[in-house]
Amino acid sequence: MTSRAEVVGTGLIGSSIGLALRERGWHVTGRDLDEARAARAHELGALDAVGHDPDAELTFVAVPVSAIAVEARRAVAAGAIVTDVGGVKAPVVTSVGHPRFVGGHPMAGSEQEGVDGADPALFTGATWVLTPTVETDPRAYARVRSVVTTFGADVVALTPEQHDALVAVVSHVPHLTAATLMALASERAEEHAALLRLAAGGFRDMTRVASGHPGIWPDICVENRDAIVAALDTLVHALADMRDLVSEGDRAALLRLLERARSARVNLPTPAARPEDLAEIRLPVPDRPGVLAEVTTLASELGVNIEDLEIAHSAEGPGGVLVLVVEASSTERVRGALAARGYRPSVRALA
Amino acid sequence: MTSRAEVVGTGLIGSSIGLALRERGWHVTGRDLDEARAARAHELGALDAVGHDPDAELTFVAVPVSAIAVEARRAVAAGAIVTDVGGVKAPVVTSVGHPRFVGGHPMAGSEQEGVDGADPALFTGATWVLTPTVETDPRAYARVRSVVTTFGADVVALTPEQHDALVAVVSHVPHLTAATLMALASERAEEHAALLRLAAGGFRDMTRVASGHPGIWPDICVENRDAIVAALDTLVHALADMRDLVSEGDRAALLRLLERARSARVNLPTPAARPEDLAEIRLPVPDRPGVLAEVTTLASELGVNIEDLEIAHSAEGPGGVLVLVVEASSTERVRGALAARGYRPSVRALA
Repeated sequence: MTSRAEVVGTGLIGSSIGLALRERGWHVTGRDLDEARAARAHELGALDAVGHDPDAELTFVAVPVSAIAVEARRAVAAGAIVTDVGGVKAPVVTSVGHPRFVGGHPMAGSEQEGVDGADPALFTGATWVLTPTVETDPRAYARVRSVVTTFGADVVALTPEQHDALVAVVSHVPHLTAATLMALASERAEEHAALLRLAAGGFRDMTRVASGHPGIWPDICVENRDAIVAALDTLVHALADMRDLVSEGDRAALLRLLERARSARVNLPTPAARPEDLAEIRLPVPDRPGVLAEVTTLASELGVNIEDLEIAHSAEGPGGVLVLVVEASSTERVRGALAARGYRPSVRALA
Repeated sequence: MTSRAEVVGTGLIGSSIGLALRERGWHVTGRDLDEARAARAHELGALDAVGHDPDAELTFVAVPVSAIAVEARRAVAAGAIVTDVGGVKAPVVTSVGHPRFVGGHPMAGSEQEGVDGADPALFTGATWVLTPTVETDPRAYARVRSVVTTFGADVVALTPEQHDALVAVVSHVPHLTAATLMALASERAEEHAALLRLAAGGFRDMTRVASGHPGIWPDICVENRDAIVAALDTLVHALADMRDLVSEGDRAALLRLLERARSARVNLPTPAARPEDLAEIRLPVPDRPGVLAEVTTLASELGVNIEDLEIAHSAEGPGGVLVLVVEASSTERVRGALAARGYRPSVRALA
């Protein structure tokens, strides 16, 4: 039988999800407040049909952050497993507050915006954050995880609060900084027209994100206000310190800071080829809430990528076995950390 | 007769200049404090010979900023026209203080560093700043300009002080900001290993420059201290304002700022194809110093690209005719501004 999904919101991300699902045999129904955009998504092959699907098993909510909660509540009420793609998670997850809602955030985008930029390969190699909580139904989590993994995405589990604090540092504040640098350069260019002709590759790279449509950012800034303000405070202090180093001509300290940044940049993780040597960690799961969230977010804290995850339920009750596939080299770290929390994991090499 | 040049310093830029010169028929002699590096440049075809050339007409000084003045003084004393490629200009130009020294700064680089990254096409389409002053010999300027133009570079004339103020905004401070963002993210990653896995394309773009060798930056920060401190102060204030907008949830002001940045980023000038319709501005040059600097930096201030420049000297004295080739659409602006300064330009369309 064909699996059926719904996509609510058919912009770049929603339509790319539609295309990716349909490539993998799903029947996809979708809609958008902007009916022309939904029609275009249908025309481009991202949807089988425009409208509602009462039989959809899985709903992706791909609308602006401020509109997610309403759509997600509607979809969970209809009985589906529901996930979203919003850039801020804690307010959304708290507001929806349902075991079958799994907060999500694919860290993917495109220079080409809107439905016409949709691409079924948009998520290949991208990090896709999922934010399980103690309330999350492990089966809902495992289903969402399994589907987005078929898109080629690498899933990272974080608590909603961790997600918001981390993206403030690695996405929101860098974006606002790029816009600020661009606005300052543009102001100075009013005094001297040649300024922007001096903008070489480095400046172009740094300000590229500022060329995107700003429409989503006021929402993000409001929804993730505290984390963004905290990260901006840290950045302002760090730049003021940098200013003092330059002013004092402290070559050694400047060099140390730049060396540290270089080393970190060079070592940024890149989507790796699948290692041959994976291992399986099997974990008897007690009948207590929050195990899924605890285990998956623990792996993220340890820097361990969960390559695959499966939940084998016992026939008789809510307990069962959680199966994690990780790089063989990281099994001992994971096993140790789990054992320290009272779990009894067993490890098995694959192939 | 073959033109002869010297290249002092055979790193990425010096060796790329050597390759570009030799492709155009020059005989190139070069040297480096690091003898192995000079030998490697020779091996890669960037030099005809390692050592000194007493008959060199033109010397490119491509050593670190703090070492330029000594090398440049040595080369002008030997009778050559001399230019450099340093990222800071006012201290260098002041320190050398010779009519045959023309400060220069090609805005080009490469992911691949050092002599092995050398590429004769490195400057194609790149902006190459030259910094004539009232002291500069117009013939020296025209010669340097003509040669780097054959490399495919677009020359922008600025005073040394203008150059330093503008690159602080468009290069030095963005670079220090990229390093600061990367260092902050790296610190936070010590608390949470997953952070850097959330670093999507935008963050990677913004921090790319931080992956370069930091060796040249302490010098640049010291030599261009005042302009960098001023630009960092401006940035810190702008980010503190941004922080307040986020804290107050001022969506409208955030959107305005982001829209302004977007518009500026989208309109960043890109190296354009040569327009068919160029025009020539002929300017009788009175016998007074600084005309060359005044005219060329005026064009830059007007945002006008000088496509070609020639100096036709009268046989009898220092006076003559300065010939500028500009886009036909900009001739009226240039002519008006020149007339306002007491020049008597004439304009002629080019076939």
